[in-house]
Amino acid sequence: MSVRPVRGGITTPRGFRAAATRAGLRSGPGPDVVLLVSDRGPVPAAATFTKNRLRAAPVEVSMRSLRASGGHVAAVIANAGCANAGTGAQGLEDARAVQALVAKRLGVANRHVFTASTGLIGSRLGVDRIASVLPGLKPVAGRAADGDAARAIMTTDTVPKEEAVEVDLGRGRTAHVAGMAKGSGMIHPMMGTMLAFLTTDAPIAPALLRATLRETVDRTFNQVTVDGDPSTNDTVLVLASGAEGGSAITGRGSLAAFTEGLEAVCRALAERIAADGEGAQHRIDVSVIGARTDREARLVARTVASSSLVKTAVHGADPNWGRIAAAAGRSGARLDPDRLAVRIGAVTVYDGAPLAFDERVASRALRGKVVGIGLDLRLGSGSGMAWGCDLSAEYVSINSEYRT
Amino acid sequence: MSVRPVRGGITTPRGFRAAATRAGLRSGPGPDVVLLVSDRGPVPAAATFTKNRLRAAPVEVSMRSLRASGGHVAAVIANAGCANAGTGAQGLEDARAVQALVAKRLGVANRHVFTASTGLIGSRLGVDRIASVLPGLKPVAGRAADGDAARAIMTTDTVPKEEAVEVDLGRGRTAHVAGMAKGSGMIHPMMGTMLAFLTTDAPIAPALLRATLRETVDRTFNQVTVDGDPSTNDTVLVLASGAEGGSAITGRGSLAAFTEGLEAVCRALAERIAADGEGAQHRIDVSVIGARTDREARLVARTVASSSLVKTAVHGADPNWGRIAAAAGRSGARLDPDRLAVRIGAVTVYDGAPLAFDERVASRALRGKVVGIGLDLRLGSGSGMAWGCDLSAEYVSINSEYRT
Repeated sequence: MSVRPVRGGITTPRGFRAAATRAGLRSGPGPDVVLLVSDRGPVPAAATFTKNRLRAAPVEVSMRSLRASGGHVAAVIANAGCANAGTGAQGLEDARAVQALVAKRLGVANRHVFTASTGLIGSRLGVDRIASVLPGLKPVAGRAADGDAARAIMTTDTVPKEEAVEVDLGRGRTAHVAGMAKGSGMIHPMMGTMLAFLTTDAPIAPALLRATLRETVDRTFNQVTVDGDPSTNDTVLVLASGAEGGSAITGRGSLAAFTEGLEAVCRALAERIAADGEGAQHRIDVSVIGARTDREARLVARTVASSSLVKTAVHGADPNWGRIAAAAGRSGARLDPDRLAVRIGAVTVYDGAPLAFDERVASRALRGKVVGIGLDLRLGSGSGMAWGCDLSAEYVSINSEYRT
Repeated sequence: MSVRPVRGGITTPRGFRAAATRAGLRSGPGPDVVLLVSDRGPVPAAATFTKNRLRAAPVEVSMRSLRASGGHVAAVIANAGCANAGTGAQGLEDARAVQALVAKRLGVANRHVFTASTGLIGSRLGVDRIASVLPGLKPVAGRAADGDAARAIMTTDTVPKEEAVEVDLGRGRTAHVAGMAKGSGMIHPMMGTMLAFLTTDAPIAPALLRATLRETVDRTFNQVTVDGDPSTNDTVLVLASGAEGGSAITGRGSLAAFTEGLEAVCRALAERIAADGEGAQHRIDVSVIGARTDREARLVARTVASSSLVKTAVHGADPNWGRIAAAAGRSGARLDPDRLAVRIGAVTVYDGAPLAFDERVASRALRGKVVGIGLDLRLGSGSGMAWGCDLSAEYVSINSEYRT
C-alpha cells in the first residue's frame, strides 16, 4: 500500500494556499468565491472539461488559457451561484474580466489564471461583486482554508467534499494528493460531471499529468451519475507544485504510485458526489466484472446506475432485479442473458435464469446507506464501477423549485 | 389531405377480428389476454423489436416466427401482467407453448402466430391460465372488441390507447389504418418503446410494409420517452389484410398516402403514450428545426424530452431555458450556441444569447396539458419531434412501489 488517507484538503500538498469569501453571487449564507494560488507561480496543470456543446464561458476561457500556457496555472478563481453559461459574448467578456482581475492582483499573466463557475445557467456573472471582494482575500494553507474553499463551490450540495492522501513514491520520497469537489444535480458521465480541483506536491510534467488525469477521470468522475444531465461547466483540474522536491515523475514505479494516489482522491470525491445526489437517501455502487473490455464494463455499470427504474427500486427497497438486468441489456455492451449473473448486496438473484432468493434479505441490502449491485457478464476480463443514487420525490421537488 | 381520422380501433380495417378476456395474469379487474385474428389466414406483416439485449421470450419467438414465415401472420396473442422476460429457457418454452395453443385452436402453423407480453420481468408466464381461457374467446369486429383489446394490454397505463384513420389511396380507393398501444413506464427511444399493434386493409407486400414501418417508427414511437428505460419487450407489429381489394401498393402515389396514414396512427398513439407517462401531468412536445439532418434533429428533440432537469422544470412551471439548451448541447448533434434559438410555448427565450422575456407568460405555457418546446439550430434543414412528459413525485412513488 503506497497510499494512505490523511486528514486534509486542497492545501495539504505543499505549495498551495487558498482563501474564500462571500461575494453575494449565491443566495443563502457562506462563501461563494474561492481563490487558490500556487506559491511558485505557474506550475504544471492538466484539466478535463465537459463534452456538452453548450460550454460555459469560464470553460471556454480556461481551455484556451491552458492551451496557451502549455499546461501551466498559477491561480484558480472559482465561484458558485452563477454558471456563466448560455451567456454569449457577454459571458466570455465577463469570464475574461475576472481572469484579468486575479492576474493583476497576483502579478501573473492572464493565461496562468484558471477560472470556473457553477450555478444557474443563463444569468450574468457579477464581476463587480467579485472585484470588490478580491483585495480582501488572503490565501493561506491549513484546514480552515481548505474547508472554506470546499464550501465556496457548493450549490445544492448538502456537504462539502474534500479528500487527501499521502503517497509513497519510493526511495523515501513522500508526496501528497488532495482535492475538493462539488456536484449534486446535473451530474452525469460525459466528461467530469462537476467541478473538482486537485492539488499535488509531486513533481510531474504537464503531458504526463494530462494523460494520467484523463485515465483516472474515466474510471472515477465519469462514472458518477445523478440525473443524466451533464453540465455546461464540468471541469476537473489538477495542479502539481513539485514542492516535494525530487526529480520529476517519469519512471513506471513512482508513476504507478502517483496514479494510485490520484485515483484514491478522485474516487473518494466521486463517491461523495453520488451520495450527495439531490434528494438521495442511498448511494448505489454498481460493480461489473466479466465484460469483454473495461470500457464495456464501465458502460454497463453506468447504465445500471443511471436507470430511473433501478433508482426508484432502490428507493423503495424493492429487489426488482429485472430492472437491473434490463438496464444492462440496453447499455450497448455485449451481453448474453444465459451467462449473466446479478447480485443485490450479497444475494445472487439471477444466474442465467431467475433464482429463488430470500426477498427480505435482498430488500434489507437495499436499505443501507450504500447499496451494492454486482453484475458478472462472464464474457471476458473487463471490469469497472459506477456510482449513483436513488431517485426520490425530494429530487423532483428540489428541481421543480430550483429558481422559483 | 388523403388521411381522415375516424372513430375506430384495431378491427376497423376490414379483415380483422379481436376478443379479450381475463386470465388472471394481472392483479386488478379487466381483461389481460387478447387474441387478434386475420379473416384470411396468414397476411403480410412487419414488426420492429426492442434493441435491448435482454430480449423477452415472446420477442425471441415472434422474431424467429416472422422470419420463418417470410413476414406473414394469421393471429396475435398478447397478454399483460407478465413480461416473460429474464426467464431463460423456461420462458422460451412457455412462449412457444402459448403460440402452439393458439395455432392449434385456429388451425394455422405455429410460425403464423405472433406473441407478445408486457408486465413484470422475471416471473413465469401462466400458460395454463391462458390455455383455460382460449376456448372461450370468440373474436369479432366492432368497437366493443376494439376497446376490450386495447384494455387487455394495459399495465400502469391509465387509459386505453386506440386510433384509426381512413386513407384515400387515389382512383376512388379507400383503405384504413388503425392501431392500439400500451406504454407508460419503461419507455424510451431505442426501438419502439412499448407494445403497439397496427392493422390495415391496404394491400401491401411484406418487404415494402417492413421498410415503411421502420421509417415511421423512427419518426414516431422511437421519439417517445418517459423514463429512459427501453423495455425488454418493445414490439410494434403491423398486419395488412389486403381486404381493400385493389392491386398491391407499389407506386409512389398510393405508398405516400398509405405511409401518411400509418404515420398519423403511430403519431397519435405515441402522443397518447407520452401523455400517459407514469405520474405525468403534462405532455412535452419538443420540435427541432434547422439541424444538419433529420436524424440529428430527432436526437436533439429526444435528448431534451428525456432530460430529468427539463422534465422537473416543466413539472414546476419554471421557464428555465438553460436546462433545455444544456440538454440540446449534450445530445451529440452539431450545435452552435451563437446560432441556437429556444422557444417555450410561443415565447422565444434564447436567441444566440439570453433574451429578456415575460417569465409569467412562459410559465403559463408550461402549465398546459401539452407543453411545446421549440429549438432552431440554424445549421441546416433537418427537422424532427419528440414526445415526453414531466417528472413528478408520483413517478417516484409508482416505481418505488411497483411490486410491493
